[in-house]
Amino acid sequence: MPSNLTEKAHNPTAALLIIGNEILSGRTQDTNLKYLAEKLLTKGVKLAEVRVVPDIEAKIITALNELRANVDYVFTTGGIGPTHDDITAESVAKAFNVPLDQNEEARAILKNYYGDEQELTEARLRMARIPRGAQLVLNPVSGAPGFQIENVFVMAGVPRIMQSMLDDIIPRLESGDQIFSLTIASLNIAESVMAEPLERIQNEYPSIEIGSYPQYRSGVFAVSFVLRGTDINLMNEAKEKIKTEILKRNGSIQAE
Amino acid sequence: MPSNLTEKAHNPTAALLIIGNEILSGRTQDTNLKYLAEKLLTKGVKLAEVRVVPDIEAKIITALNELRANVDYVFTTGGIGPTHDDITAESVAKAFNVPLDQNEEARAILKNYYGDEQELTEARLRMARIPRGAQLVLNPVSGAPGFQIENVFVMAGVPRIMQSMLDDIIPRLESGDQIFSLTIASLNIAESVMAEPLERIQNEYPSIEIGSYPQYRSGVFAVSFVLRGTDINLMNEAKEKIKTEILKRNGSIQAE
Repeated sequence: MPSNLTEKAHNPTAALLIIGNEILSGRTQDTNLKYLAEKLLTKGVKLAEVRVVPDIEAKIITALNELRANVDYVFTTGGIGPTHDDITAESVAKAFNVPLDQNEEARAILKNYYGDEQELTEARLRMARIPRGAQLVLNPVSGAPGFQIENVFVMAGVPRIMQSMLDDIIPRLESGDQIFSLTIASLNIAESVMAEPLERIQNEYPSIEIGSYPQYRSGVFAVSFVLRGTDINLMNEAKEKIKTEILKRNGSIQAE
Repeated sequence: MPSNLTEKAHNPTAALLIIGNEILSGRTQDTNLKYLAEKLLTKGVKLAEVRVVPDIEAKIITALNELRANVDYVFTTGGIGPTHDDITAESVAKAFNVPLDQNEEARAILKNYYGDEQELTEARLRMARIPRGAQLVLNPVSGAPGFQIENVFVMAGVPRIMQSMLDDIIPRLESGDQIFSLTIASLNIAESVMAEPLERIQNEYPSIEIGSYPQYRSGVFAVSFVLRGTDINLMNEAKEKIKTEILKRNGSIQAE
């Protein structure tokens, strides 16, 4: 069994908590999940769970406390602006049972961003309230920082801002083993005819995660096979098996 | 206070459980959340929580049991195809502690879809395994049905198939009070200058959910106000207040 030769891979796990009524109402299409997942994979960190909760303090606190106990890193998006429905900082402080202070470093960043002490309105200063003990996460796009408290990273929901904050966060994460991904796109094969041989190949390579994803491409049934793992040689071996034992045998067209 | 005149609205709640490694790896951009949320709103049903879990039985069972205890309806997407990584039906049966039988009605649908008894391979018959006591959910796109067990609706992950299944499900749901949504798009206003008056208006109309969403439009800061509620007259009143007390007073351009 080739997989017995593979040492157990080390990959930190992460969860994403999306905070926002606008996602749950369908008004806004979330794109942060996909962006974060891909970024984390480049670091060898695996996204293990995602939750979306409304702007309700108790829901945020419960979800955050469950997630941070289960994974290595939790990321939150949304709810850190200056308005009444931005309750993330307060909820996170309560989840950690620490006070929500005005953070001097955050205040200085806001003053610098808005250019003048006069511009630091009460609403804007709300964005300088950071749970005690947290470190800031920089926001080059619009000033107001996110923060990190223990294993929790709090980011904005607007994708461009979230992405810039993530750039400041990624170097703080422990790297996992490199995770490789191989895809075999095939046309004219139904998932159902390859289910049995695919399961056999999966059992032969338990350290590789093999998925098959049906889709439509201009009216034709297509299946993509995706292999994910940390041992690229083993993965290439499994990929060849899928090609010879499933695709060739069924006369499928490979559309790689 | 106008809101005291409003009777408490009745709106069933729902949760979505997205099952699939392909979402968590970032390979696939989920679009089912937004589609489901909008469809449910037309029925007066509110999406209250979403979770994304990997293709791991224990994770699916835990999440499903938590969600179905908390909301009126749970929807799942993904993992009901014929391959080894399709473990949703089995996981749901275990969550409800019922056997996973071959369902004769589902078998007949598959036979009709594939056209011949010979075509009912072992893999395809996996898709006729339905938890005992469940009712089928029709799939006009690709045959293999979803199912309903108690308050849980199990659907495919491929958007076109999921959408066709939802058409069969929607009539089974209890309708809630109609939920209206009003949007005020405005340019040239920063969220921070209107935070205080907006909070005041929100407090005046507690039965209306008022959100403010910053975005970038061609390099300009813009804010969208979204009002959601069941009393359209009250909502129009609140909308006028936002226009006169926030937008006009700040010289903002309304981009409705």
